[in-house]
This record gives sequence, C-alpha cells and structure tokens, in this order.
Amino acid sequence: MEKMKFTIIGGDLRNVKLAELIAAEGNSVNIYGFDKASFDVKIRQSNTIEEAVDGSDVVIGPIPCSNDNEYINAPFHSEKILIHDVFKFMNKNQLFIAGRISDKIVHLAQVCNVYNVDMLEREEMAVLNAIPTAEGAIQIAMEEMPTTLHNSNALVLGYGRIGKTLAKMLQGIGANVFVEARKYADVAWIKSYGYKAVSLSELTQTVKDMNVIFNTIPFVVLDNDILKMLNPECLIIDLASKPGGVDFEKAKEIGLKAIWALSLPGKVAPVTAAEFIKDTVFNIIEELGV
Amino acid sequence: MEKMKFTIIGGDLRNVKLAELIAAEGNSVNIYGFDKASFDVKIRQSNTIEEAVDGSDVVIGPIPCSNDNEYINAPFHSEKILIHDVFKFMNKNQLFIAGRISDKIVHLAQVCNVYNVDMLEREEMAVLNAIPTAEGAIQIAMEEMPTTLHNSNALVLGYGRIGKTLAKMLQGIGANVFVEARKYADVAWIKSYGYKAVSLSELTQTVKDMNVIFNTIPFVVLDNDILKMLNPECLIIDLASKPGGVDFEKAKEIGLKAIWALSLPGKVAPVTAAEFIKDTVFNIIEELGV
Amino acid sequence: MEKMKFTIIGGDLRNVKLAELIAAEGNSVNIYGFDKASFDVKIRQSNTIEEAVDGSDVVIGPIPCSNDNEYINAPFHSEKILIHDVFKFMNKNQLFIAGRISDKIVHLAQVCNVYNVDMLEREEMAVLNAIPTAEGAIQIAMEEMPTTLHNSNALVLGYGRIGKTLAKMLQGIGANVFVEARKYADVAWIKSYGYKAVSLSELTQTVKDMNVIFNTIPFVVLDNDILKMLNPECLIIDLASKPGGVDFEKAKEIGLKAIWALSLPGKVAPVTAAEFIKDTVFNIIEELGV
Amino acid sequence: MEKMKFTIIGGDLRNVKLAELIAAEGNSVNIYGFDKASFDVKIRQSNTIEEAVDGSDVVIGPIPCSNDNEYINAPFHSEKILIHDVFKFMNKNQLFIAGRISDKIVHLAQVCNVYNVDMLEREEMAVLNAIPTAEGAIQIAMEEMPTTLHNSNALVLGYGRIGKTLAKMLQGIGANVFVEARKYADVAWIKSYGYKAVSLSELTQTVKDMNVIFNTIPFVVLDNDILKMLNPECLIIDLASKPGGVDFEKAKEIGLKAIWALSLPGKVAPVTAAEFIKDTVFNIIEELGV
Repeated sequence: MEKMKFTIIGGDLRNVKLAELIAAEGNSVNIYGFDKASFDVKIRQSNTIEEAVDGSDVVIGPIPCSNDNEYINAPFHSEKILIHDVFKFMNKNQLFIAGRISDKIVHLAQVCNVYNVDMLEREEMAVLNAIPTAEGAIQIAMEEMPTTLHNSNALVLGYGRIGKTLAKMLQGIGANVFVEARKYADVAWIKSYGYKAVSLSELTQTVKDMNVIFNTIPFVVLDNDILKMLNPECLIIDLASKPGGVDFEKAKEIGLKAIWALSLPGKVAPVTAAEFIKDTVFNIIEELGV
Repeated sequence: MEKMKFTIIGGDLRNVKLAELIAAEGNSVNIYGFDKASFDVKIRQSNTIEEAVDGSDVVIGPIPCSNDNEYINAPFHSEKILIHDVFKFMNKNQLFIAGRISDKIVHLAQVCNVYNVDMLEREEMAVLNAIPTAEGAIQIAMEEMPTTLHNSNALVLGYGRIGKTLAKMLQGIGANVFVEARKYADVAWIKSYGYKAVSLSELTQTVKDMNVIFNTIPFVVLDNDILKMLNPECLIIDLASKPGGVDFEKAKEIGLKAIWALSLPGKVAPVTAAEFIKDTVFNIIEELGV
Repeated sequence: MEKMKFTIIGGDLRNVKLAELIAAEGNSVNIYGFDKASFDVKIRQSNTIEEAVDGSDVVIGPIPCSNDNEYINAPFHSEKILIHDVFKFMNKNQLFIAGRISDKIVHLAQVCNVYNVDMLEREEMAVLNAIPTAEGAIQIAMEEMPTTLHNSNALVLGYGRIGKTLAKMLQGIGANVFVEARKYADVAWIKSYGYKAVSLSELTQTVKDMNVIFNTIPFVVLDNDILKMLNPECLIIDLASKPGGVDFEKAKEIGLKAIWALSLPGKVAPVTAAEFIKDTVFNIIEELGV
Repeated sequence: MEKMKFTIIGGDLRNVKLAELIAAEGNSVNIYGFDKASFDVKIRQSNTIEEAVDGSDVVIGPIPCSNDNEYINAPFHSEKILIHDVFKFMNKNQLFIAGRISDKIVHLAQVCNVYNVDMLEREEMAVLNAIPTAEGAIQIAMEEMPTTLHNSNALVLGYGRIGKTLAKMLQGIGANVFVEARKYADVAWIKSYGYKAVSLSELTQTVKDMNVIFNTIPFVVLDNDILKMLNPECLIIDLASKPGGVDFEKAKEIGLKAIWALSLPGKVAPVTAAEFIKDTVFNIIEELGV
C-alpha cells in the first residue's frame, strides 16, 4: 500500500496505539483529542480539528464512535468534540471510519457529504476481536477459579465467532470442552473440532458437571431453571452484549458467581486490538481503492 | 427417537454398513439391491421392491442416487432397479432420502407423489463428510511423499469445509500449514486458528517452498503459471469436484505428481461415512417430524 | 483402595481442600492446626495432637513441612505446633507424609521412629504441579501484557517439567513458542512437539523479537548481556526457585518488567493442587502397601 | 560448522539421500557401494574403497551397519564390501559412524585403530526417528481401518519415545487417545498432555472399546487373555522390535488383524530419515570437536 495521510480523532488506548502503529509504517498521522494521553513515540497533536483533518485521506474515529450521538467518544481529551465539527471540516474525498456509527450519525454524515464506514460491521474485524475477547475470558476464569482450567469441564454456550475461538483456546489449555449449539451443521463442526456437542435439551443435565460456563448468546439462556441445576462452585462468565445471557439476580440469590465481561479487547489487549483495527482499516482502504 | 421401519435400496458399502447401523439401534430394516453384498449381521433381503418398501417409514437410496437418472445406483446387485419401480410402490406418507437427486428424478418423484430429500444438500452432511475426505487426503500424502508430513510445508487452497478440516488435521500432525483464501474474514479465521494465510497475489512465491499442495477449489487454480513455480518434488492432491483445480496435462508435462482424489469418504472410511449418513437421515426425520 | 484413617496437620489452603477431598472419598479424617480455617464440609477438628494422631494410618503434614525445622508450617492455626510433638505421638506403623522434609526433620523422625516420605521428591507430584504452575504463569502474562498471548512470540527457557507443560499450553492458546534447551535430545523433542528450538548461542538474537520470556532454569540465564538485547516491552516471568534466573536489579535498571512468581500451585489453583497431593499420597500408600 | 570431507559407504535409500543432503550444504562427499542407486544430484562414485576413504574426515556407514558382522550392509551395490576392507584404509584421525555397530564390529574397529560411534545409541536420533515411525503407523492405520482415525478410540501401549510421539499425532487428527503406562510419573504426563491414562489392571476392560491398538513395548503384552477381549474389528499395529508385543498366532486364530510394522522411518520417509541422520552426525562431530 502507498503511504497515506491519516487523522485519528478521539478514542481510548486502542486509538493511541493505532496512531503509533500507523505512523510506524511510514504514514503521516495527525491526532486530535488526546491531550491527556501519553504516546510512546513522538506524534504531533494538532491544535484544532480543522488542522487535524486538513489534507488527510482517512479520518479514524473511536469505537464506539459516540456515546450520545453528538460528541466524539474521547476519554483522553479534556474538552468535548462535536461530531458535527469533525464532519464540517471533511470534504467528500475523505473517508471517515469508526466503530458503531449510529443511524443518527450516518444521517449527519450524509448531510455533511462525508463518506463513512463502520468498522464493526466488517466480518474480519469481528473475527479478529474474538481473539482478545476469548483470551480475556480465559484470564478471568483463571483468576476466579480455585482449580486449573486444565482438566476442568468448560461449557461454551453458542458457536459463533467468540464461541469458536474460545473453544479452541480452552482445548489448547487442556480443558474438557463442551459446546452448546442448535443448528445441525454447528453440531457437526463441534464434533469435527473435537469438542463435545450439547443440544438445548441436554443442557439441564450437562450443566451439573461444569466447572465454568461461558455464555456468548445475547438472550437469557441461563435462567432460573438452568441456574438451579449448577454446581454451586461453577463460575459463570457472560460475554454477550446487552441484555446478556444470564439472570444475574437469580444467580446472586442462589449464591452463584456470575461475571458480565464486556468490551474485553480494549481492556485486556489494547495493542492487539489496535493492530486488528489497523488491519481492518487497511482492508477497507484497499477495497474502496482510496 | 421412536423405533421406525426403514428400507434401504441399492448403494455401495456405505449403504451396507448403514443398514447394519440402523438395525443395531433396534429399528426394523428391509433391504433390496444387495444380492452380491455380504453383511456382518443378519439382515433379511426382501425378494421384491414392493415387499421391501411395504409398510416402511423411510426409504433410503444410494449416493449418488443414480448415474443415469433411470436406474438406482446399485453396484452390489445383479439386476437393474428402475427408480420408477421404487417410486410406484411408495405412498405419500413415506419419505425417500438419497444423495444427489437430480432434477429429473425430483420430477419423477413429484409425478409419483413421493416426498424426497437430498441428503447431500444438508449442511451437516457436508461438514461431516469433510472429515473422511481430509483423512483420505492425508493418507494419500503419507503414501506418496518421501518425507514426513510432520515439519513439511503444506498448502491448502481454499478455506471451505474441506479446507478447514484438512488444515486442522495437518496442524495436528505437525505440518507447517499455509492456507490460501481470498475473503478478509477467512484470512482472519486462518490467523485465528494459527495457520499462515496466503493471499492470491502471494501464491506464486509461496508455492516454491511447499512440499505438498491440497486443492479444494473447483476451478483451475494450479495453472501453468503456478505449476512451473513449484518445487519438482512437490506433491499435488486435488480434492475438488469436476472440473478440478489442476491443469493435469501441464503438471504431467513439467513432471509433477498430481493426484485427483474424489469420493474419498466411501473409499477410505465407509463405516464412518455410513455413520454420518445415519446421523443426517435421523436429523432429517427429526426435523420433518416423521 | 480400602478406606483408611488419615490425619492432616497444618498447611495452607491446599491441606484444607485435601482434608475435604479425602473425606469425600469415604475415609476417616482427623484434622489439627486449622482453628482459623473454614471448611466447606463438616470435618471435626481434634482438640489435641494426640487425639488427632491416635489410630491414624497416615499423618499428612504441610508443604513445606516447616519453615524453621522446629514448628509445623501452620498458617491457619493460632498456636504453634512443634514437629516433635507430632512425632512423639506417632507409632512405627504410622506413615508421615509432607513436602520438603529437611535433613534435620528426617533426623528427628528417625530418632522418634517415624517412617516418613517427602511427597515433593515424587516424580509424579512434580509433573502434576507443573500444570498449575504453567497456568499461573499464563495468567500473569495475560494480566501484564498489553497484547494477546495468541500470536505473540513467547520464549521458554529450559525444557524440564515446567518448560514442557508451559510450552504446550502456550501453543494451545496460539502463541509462537520458542524453547531454549541445551541437550541434543531435548532439541529433538522440541522440534517433535512443534516448537522452535533455540540454542544457547542463538539466545542473544532470539530474545530481541520476544514479547514474553518465561524462565524455568534455576541460575541466572537472563544476565545483563541478554537483558540489554530485549525489546523494552518484553515481559519476563521467572518461575525458577532460588536464586532465580534473572538479574532483577539489572532488569529494573534497564526498565524491564520482571516478575518472580513462586509457589504458584497453592496460589492460583489450591483445589487442583490438593487433588494432586491426594493422588500422590495414594500412590505412596499403594506402593508401600500400607 | 566448517566444510568437511565425508565418505558414505553402503546403506539403503536413506544413505543415498544423506549423501545428497551433505553435499548440498557444500561439503565434499565421496560415495562407495551405490553402483545400482540413482542420485538426484551429481555425486561422484569412487572406484575403490581406498579412494573413497582417502582424505576423508568422517566415514558414514549404513543402518544397520551389517547383517552378518562381516560385510557392510549395501543393498544398492552389486559386490560385497568387507567391513575389514573399510577399516584397514582408515587412519586414527578419521571417524566411523554407523547404526547398530555390534560388539564384534567394535572389536574389529579397535584392532584396526578406528574410532567409531553408533548413531542409534544417540538419544536425539531415537527421538527424531519416532516421528516417521509414528507417521508410518498412522498411515497403516488409515489404510487398514474402515473408519476414520478421527473420533476413533486409539490405545497406545507404552509411553516411551514412540508412544509419546504417536499419542500426540493421534490427538492431532482427532482420535480419542488412551495410553497404557505403568510408572506414576508417566501417568501424570499422560494426564498432563490430555490423553486418558490406562493402568495395566484396567487394560482388559479398556481394550474392549478400542478401534485400534498400537504397541510399542518389546514384550508380549497382547497375549491370549487380552486378545480375546478385543472387539473383532479392532486393528493391532505392533511397532516393537523383536520379540514384538503381540501373540500373532493367537491373534490369527481369533481372527484379529495384527500387523508387525518394523523399520518404518526408512520405508515411509527416507528423506526425512536421512535429514535426521545428518543432524545426528553433525551433532556427533560438534561434540567430538572433529
């Protein structure tokens, strides 16, 4: 890829690392929205949004883009940054990439004639993000369990991207891996990869012997009926986005330890997460022929 | 599942084993079309198609169902079996399951009022069949190569069902696994599983160092341009259905060994293949609520 | 094995769990030295050492047996327990098992006519203990590194029990595993298991690219010359018992993060550690034909 | 390593490949005893033993060195080569390396003042040779079994070098791996690597469910009592050197298929075997400081 000019505006530690990574490959990088951040390498902070955006090929925003649809999500900045202020300085040859760009922001972009891509809608990004998510889940399990994961019975609910990645790592550490899935084809894959397939109807029996359960399904699978079958020592780690997959109140009542672990990539492995963002951004650029 | 009555008509060693497996689970099994086959367990051969089909819940035909759209594919039978003769004795409450049921046969079934399902169109069947296919490919590689697969450079072209299963097994034996894929999401999965991802543009360079190449893509990837880059000792195993993925004539000209290995499940592991057919048949029955 | 009578005297959380595990298998268990511990199951605490030891087949002490060669290591007890007080109530048909029984304690046992076995000198115990040690090391690495272990470069120094176990788990999570070993046979095993073998002479070059280094060799391998070659972000985890394998002062000077992680089994997985103690104790009993 | 002069005298396909490999690294190579062999690269065949040996640093013989203690094992030569004729032209600064050098040959070497090393007594050679042995065993199992190894029950008798390597590969293909071992420490390792440990006393029960049994123990473990417990479909592959580990007569009587597979490295992967010989030869040279 030819060297390009990037602007990075706002975001958490991942965007700090992203700026460093993109600069390290010889690209020009302007940043704005990081007056409280410290960088390992020298990167010049722009004084104004206009200066930051000027002449740039690609403007990269945070994940998520905004928490209120009005201001850029910029935890490392002491002042607020209006999304509109970013868009108004961008021209139609520039590309805006961020994560979770809401309908309202998309609308604003259209009004401002800003071409935008949501990186979280990229399949490869979701696949790659499953890696730090799975590792983060394993770290939590290791911290919380009084036994080793090795030779423990570990159940993964759901066989999507996170389920697949987590099952493989758990097997790699030596756990006895059970995976719950509904589709016949998923069950076939589960057998093919050497895990024990658990159907929904077998769930109530299977959970009894589990030492740890990881949920990846975004609706309440672990309801009262299932929870009361669990071994009291069984740890529950919920990786599903809202509304989550656990009846946390019931779990507490019964005395089960249940942890809702969200947004792990940015927390447990910001540098790796930044690398994956970079890869995805470059894929988008290549595909669009920017 | 409740015990049911099955009829198995025609087919190769897989259907012989299938009959034994279904009977072993306590179901009633009539067979027809196996007068030259030998069975490990006692299964009564029906004298006529009518007798075989009478009172049955499910009639299972071969894979492929027919080679000429007229007669049942029945290599173990001394006489020819007209598909129409099977269909005419079936009633509309009976289910016909076979593999690769052509449009012409589907039409005949409709005319005869026979409800039919093609098991090869079932996703789980394709996933499961990838297991004996991959093992068969590995067996051939072991037989043909003067080196071990362990520590060899093995390239898998394509990351579909066979590519995924094969890559995992090759890694399990200790090969250095390279996988060629185009989609960004596939490349992400390839990295996630620990293989080396090879893009189409890198292919020419990568093939130079390979000891064995497995193709799973059904169009000619290994054309003259790629073939002439190969190490002369490199073995090629083509697993793709017609037209295959190798310019076999060119390969021969250059002096490369290229093997086109088709229909491996029935050849290398008929018993396992029969088990997978049974699983799929039972899934179909469960889904249809027969 | 026939049911027997056990006494457990002193020790940390592992001995608490051990008492529960042995009782759960239907054996009689007396405990002493746990007045501050809480047990998940009901186990009667003896009032005196004499009462605890009386009629017992096997008396199990802590790991390590003592920190001063005079008192039993009993962190859960409010009073001190003289080793001599334990031995004097034991008869010659009773067996004393503990971990790290010093020469001085062995001498005392001989004087008191107490047959004793050091469980840490059992090969299987050391092999099993490597499992929680390796998992603990991985947990620390996950907590400390800003990247995933997946796809990181991880170097293991030494290929003994911990090195072997750790290398396998790291590979299972998806790290690129390098192992330093000297013996030709070890190098052969390292290749056989699919890790990259690093000889002592290659070490200086190899360390440059590492993201994490785990040391298992009990002498200073990571001295100033090696340390200054490391990437400043590289994490060092030292698992070697005294004197350890890292020049910690130099590491600090250079700005490298180095963690000396000792006695991991009891810390990260006391229940698993207790199971391994139980297995080993039962092996000793079986071997001696107690 | 500095470039050296090698002589290769006699041996099978492995020594043919060995000559090519050593020459490919820039060393000078004389060969003798291959008048019926064809080489992929140009290597000059010496006309006489004297010419072949003259000026050489290291003389490499075959594996095994001889079948009768008198003549060099030279299947590719049309004439017989007396061991004594080789030794008499060697001087005391030259090193003779071969495999399985009998006491009688050692004695002859001493008489002739020839310094000799048996490469089969090198631990690393034995470890490396376990790789093609295990792969060869897997190839045979794949060829003979009507099921896939994936998801089959595979029992490995013995946990030495071959047992370890084979267990790992079987697991990598997706078999359910059982390993029989006696020592407590081996049982611990077996659990650590994720196989199911089988003690001698459990063997009779375990064998019933096996689809394939690999023996590596050089005494008759699979005697009449065990054999009659086996499933009639169970395949037996014996990898143990004489007297082997199977009562083959009884097996035949019962109708069990039992294959005695010896000397697999040279048969299934001569090129890899040659590489391992080369590595070992170079290790010997390095150690001796030749």
